[in-house]
Amino acid sequence: MKNIEEKAKTPTIGERSLEKHYEWGGKIEVRSRVAIENSSDLSLAYTPGVAAPCLEIQKDYNRSFELTRRSNLVAVITDGTAVLGLGDIGPEAGMPVMEGKCALFKEFADVDAFPICIRSKDVDELVRTIYLISGSFGGINLEDISAPRCFEVERKLKEICDIPVFHDDQHGTAIVVGAALINALKVVNKKIDEVKVVINGAGSAGIAIGTHFLRLGVKNLTMIDRFGIICEGMEELNDAQREMALVTNREHKRGSLADAMKDADVFVGVSAPGIVSENMIKSMASDPIVFPMANPVPEIMPELAKKAGARVVGTGRSDFPNQINNVLAFPGIFRGALDCRAKAITEEMKTAATIAISSLVSAEELNEEYILPKAFDKRIAKAVAAAVVEAERKSREEV
Amino acid sequence: MKNIEEKAKTPTIGERSLEKHYEWGGKIEVRSRVAIENSSDLSLAYTPGVAAPCLEIQKDYNRSFELTRRSNLVAVITDGTAVLGLGDIGPEAGMPVMEGKCALFKEFADVDAFPICIRSKDVDELVRTIYLISGSFGGINLEDISAPRCFEVERKLKEICDIPVFHDDQHGTAIVVGAALINALKVVNKKIDEVKVVINGAGSAGIAIGTHFLRLGVKNLTMIDRFGIICEGMEELNDAQREMALVTNREHKRGSLADAMKDADVFVGVSAPGIVSENMIKSMASDPIVFPMANPVPEIMPELAKKAGARVVGTGRSDFPNQINNVLAFPGIFRGALDCRAKAITEEMKTAATIAISSLVSAEELNEEYILPKAFDKRIAKAVAAAVVEAERKSREEV
Repeated sequence: MKNIEEKAKTPTIGERSLEKHYEWGGKIEVRSRVAIENSSDLSLAYTPGVAAPCLEIQKDYNRSFELTRRSNLVAVITDGTAVLGLGDIGPEAGMPVMEGKCALFKEFADVDAFPICIRSKDVDELVRTIYLISGSFGGINLEDISAPRCFEVERKLKEICDIPVFHDDQHGTAIVVGAALINALKVVNKKIDEVKVVINGAGSAGIAIGTHFLRLGVKNLTMIDRFGIICEGMEELNDAQREMALVTNREHKRGSLADAMKDADVFVGVSAPGIVSENMIKSMASDPIVFPMANPVPEIMPELAKKAGARVVGTGRSDFPNQINNVLAFPGIFRGALDCRAKAITEEMKTAATIAISSLVSAEELNEEYILPKAFDKRIAKAVAAAVVEAERKSREEV
Repeated sequence: MKNIEEKAKTPTIGERSLEKHYEWGGKIEVRSRVAIENSSDLSLAYTPGVAAPCLEIQKDYNRSFELTRRSNLVAVITDGTAVLGLGDIGPEAGMPVMEGKCALFKEFADVDAFPICIRSKDVDELVRTIYLISGSFGGINLEDISAPRCFEVERKLKEICDIPVFHDDQHGTAIVVGAALINALKVVNKKIDEVKVVINGAGSAGIAIGTHFLRLGVKNLTMIDRFGIICEGMEELNDAQREMALVTNREHKRGSLADAMKDADVFVGVSAPGIVSENMIKSMASDPIVFPMANPVPEIMPELAKKAGARVVGTGRSDFPNQINNVLAFPGIFRGALDCRAKAITEEMKTAATIAISSLVSAEELNEEYILPKAFDKRIAKAVAAAVVEAERKSREEV
């Protein structure tokens, strides 16, 4: 029996979630879309009738996107090496996150998504395994694969797969932070090609955000990782960081995060809890934009950042204003990609999605505490999907 | 415009099935089991709460069978090399069958099943790929993989997987034919250890049926393949056939199907349409039991077999009496295996399932035209599942 003290204790969100997970026994379910109640149903959905759609696909591979669930199906795939902020917890332990993501896909964009964890950390084996099963799906969402392996896994898969491959931790994040940046700049009345931007954390999300920012028009970008400001010629860099070093920090500054933040207009954190001080915020340019997105504890708490002079603050959390959450992007991205049967998620699609998200906040509504639409705003997935489809249409015309 | 003649033509079952498949756009669907309508839902089903079940699984791998959908989830996996009677039509072309099977799993036993096709025919690559994704599932149903590769794939997977691996074309078929045999023998009042049994077709189904028959008590068994009666020392045999040759045809007979059928009490066909003649039936012992199961056209049509003297006839078809259909077995097999978290489908479970199915036909009901329960009999999956669970319990006690 529990004693009174234990009973009285309010359960944490983790405890409640764990209890719910035991109750749920899995957050997704595979259902039949056809009634099979008698021999006649059986003969159409299964033998002998089913031979006909099989032969149709054998004749024309493209029919698999119409005659099977590939039409609406995305695999959410992890190797369990970078799950949430928990790190390498193993493939099976990553599955509650994957299932959650699948539930979001369905709830937000009516995309069927199925979670798969792979028991390998070897890049080539991951790539081969995913490729070999890719004929079962209409798209592949990579999730929680550690950097820098994730870059190579995605690049190699994109080369060999005929369906979209999208590492959400990179591109989903980048799309949403991009939308946040565009609107925050409107609030402070600064131009994207004139601001000095600092990104702390040069992992998968950081690199992708940086790349996306450059595409959106940022000219002055500095990235920082554990070993300090990323600079051309440094030995510590991995391939992805080395590429970024060639197009960021053109002043070839070296130094710490504090050094980088001096006179910056924009700070983006995808790093670690509490590593930004009030003094760093104070050292920034006027009207600083601060996105400390480490989860669940940000690089600096919003109230502290505000006190230190931050004008616009956005975090990954739902309990503060301006939540910067991937869920604004990935459901609509794949909804659109499946709708137009895109073979890839292109840079143009990502940019279009960013603009679509930022455009959902009207000039009248826009303010320091409202730079992004709320996660449960039903317009988002539709707008993002439409932007993706339109970008795909344009790219076809250009070819 | 269609002309009147075309309009008047009744569509075939294949044509109707194809049309339906275009309409369905996939026969299965992935649904969320949790409502995600607000931030509070999101924080429990996804971040930040979801970290708790992740960590729980990291601590104890076994929890993945409770905290994720592995609890109720079977992968239906093919390489597309032996789809229906169509042969090697390719992985994607096999998917309509796999989806149909998944729909049956759900409808008949509330098992979530998810179809995966693999773009490789290499045994080791198939095994490795399936093993690498096996942490996502609670069971693996192999389907439509050609012989003799299927034997090796299954054997190797069973060695390395900690969840049940079951090649339905082999064992599902064997279980149901076994139940049909037991009840047909009651009809003709013969004993299983006294009858002479002939199986034509030594592919995956034939070998499995033979093996299962021996386990059920058959002593006199002869198998035939394209090159004739299988006999110890023949060069044409593959490994599986060679093993069978050591325990069947102990008289070391050589010859044709016609030779083998002389004086046989039981004929089982898993071979080709129309290859059994009336004279062959006439050459069998008194009250012959004839199961010509080639699909959709049997080795001999039931009315012909009857005319030639067959006492009990069963086929794979739903439009004749005594349909011998895997759907009597696989849903309940996996229902039971998931319910008791079996690590494998054992020989004891298969035998128990066979007896459970045959027992659903009472002595009063049993007759020449009713030796098996009907596919849509709701008792079947429950009875089979209970038999599997009971067999598993016994095996634990014995250990």
